[in-house]
Amino acid sequence: MSTSPFCTRLAQRVASRGSQIVLGLDPDPARVDGGAVGARDFCADVIAKAAEHCVAAKPQLACFERFGADGWQAFEEVSQAAADAGLLVIADAKRGDVDATTRHYAAAFLRDPIDALTVNPMLGTDSVTPFLEAAAHGGRGLFVLVRTSNPGAAELEDLEMADGRPWHEAVADRVRQWGRTTTVPGQGSSIGAVVGATVPERIHRLRELMPDQPFLLPGVGAQGGDPAELGPAFAGRAHGALVSASRSVIYADDPAQAARDLRNMVWNIWEEHR
Amino acid sequence: MSTSPFCTRLAQRVASRGSQIVLGLDPDPARVDGGAVGARDFCADVIAKAAEHCVAAKPQLACFERFGADGWQAFEEVSQAAADAGLLVIADAKRGDVDATTRHYAAAFLRDPIDALTVNPMLGTDSVTPFLEAAAHGGRGLFVLVRTSNPGAAELEDLEMADGRPWHEAVADRVRQWGRTTTVPGQGSSIGAVVGATVPERIHRLRELMPDQPFLLPGVGAQGGDPAELGPAFAGRAHGALVSASRSVIYADDPAQAARDLRNMVWNIWEEHR
Repeated sequence: MSTSPFCTRLAQRVASRGSQIVLGLDPDPARVDGGAVGARDFCADVIAKAAEHCVAAKPQLACFERFGADGWQAFEEVSQAAADAGLLVIADAKRGDVDATTRHYAAAFLRDPIDALTVNPMLGTDSVTPFLEAAAHGGRGLFVLVRTSNPGAAELEDLEMADGRPWHEAVADRVRQWGRTTTVPGQGSSIGAVVGATVPERIHRLRELMPDQPFLLPGVGAQGGDPAELGPAFAGRAHGALVSASRSVIYADDPAQAARDLRNMVWNIWEEHR
Repeated sequence: MSTSPFCTRLAQRVASRGSQIVLGLDPDPARVDGGAVGARDFCADVIAKAAEHCVAAKPQLACFERFGADGWQAFEEVSQAAADAGLLVIADAKRGDVDATTRHYAAAFLRDPIDALTVNPMLGTDSVTPFLEAAAHGGRGLFVLVRTSNPGAAELEDLEMADGRPWHEAVADRVRQWGRTTTVPGQGSSIGAVVGATVPERIHRLRELMPDQPFLLPGVGAQGGDPAELGPAFAGRAHGALVSASRSVIYADDPAQAARDLRNMVWNIWEEHR
């Protein structure tokens, strides 16, 4: 799976599955019994039910790490189950550290069956360089946090800079640069951006700054983002934007129905904006 | 160990051990053979040799996660070995995510035998609130990234804001606020700050902005920071600043000697600035 660039595989997978939905796997022990094994079995069940309506799965590392080594084993098994179901696997770990350390995180996460990793950009270019190298040489993708979906994100990410722009637009500039070496004409880059679906008013501007980046849009469903407002995110590519939903799908009475409904809604929005 | 606040235990431990040195445990497979077990045994050996000259150990999660579930098991065993040797344990994981997720990271890391966690602040107050609650109620500490030690940190962390200050000073303002509820008179706060020893020219200003925070200073040794310039970091408290060294100690021909030398150098600097 690692021979073609992530952006190529993403384009192919979105087209073949007819979905831009990312299945967020955040098993919460307040709702899922049985520790690490319970979390694994719950995720496997959700994958079996909802995968056909999705293009990727996004296991949340925190929900597995809370169970220690057993949790990591469960994370690996859940990732393999998602890959076996035909889904791309995006490890939602939001890692960021100095370069000597991100080299190790790259080894931890940018390997089969994982296709892509979420990354925190605060420490700057040198800190993400090992991730970029692993993405370029191993056919992996990154989704870099640019403007997150939580209410408090405005506090530091939106701070006004001396040039009048919010701080996160400087992050967007960097992400565009970071993505250049992995950009394939017509398919965009393998280096994507996380942009909260809760701030649709920022999406148009961030698309201008990052024309080649696939956008990963969390925050629909439980966090209140409205899929109908996400049209500008696609940038004319079916795989230009992925919509991630976790709680609103995995805890639904019928996860398959919830995923199908979201898929159809998002695909229609893309069709209107293609 | 969880009944007293982290800042109290930190003050006691620095006084009783006569050291402000944090033993950074970053086992690199390029230098340490044997996978997860090799990393565990290497760290246990370094702890046995150097612990008496240190006050805390700081295992780097990336170096363990690269070995998957076996690596997590090794991380837990290394953390216990450090605690058994009388060291405080600072999990260097630099986690940061939306609040529903940091709640799980708090469960993963703010528990015995771990005393404190490094945290990424980019997502703002709501994102760190579960960490702050766990710190306040469980007697744990946090070290929040304010200005990191890597060369590229200036790129985004030092960006000039509309008020003329670098962005990281807004982070410092927040960290001071976050630390208020865990501040003990005369002992400072349980919510500390990571400030690179590679930028001593910023330490005086960051001390003004964060008078109560214990500073965790990485970047001496292999990254080039000079301990002699760190005096202003202590703020009149022996436990006001911790100096972290990893490669320059753990790969030294004589780790005990390297740790002892660094301890004496740093303690003398503190004595000159008390």
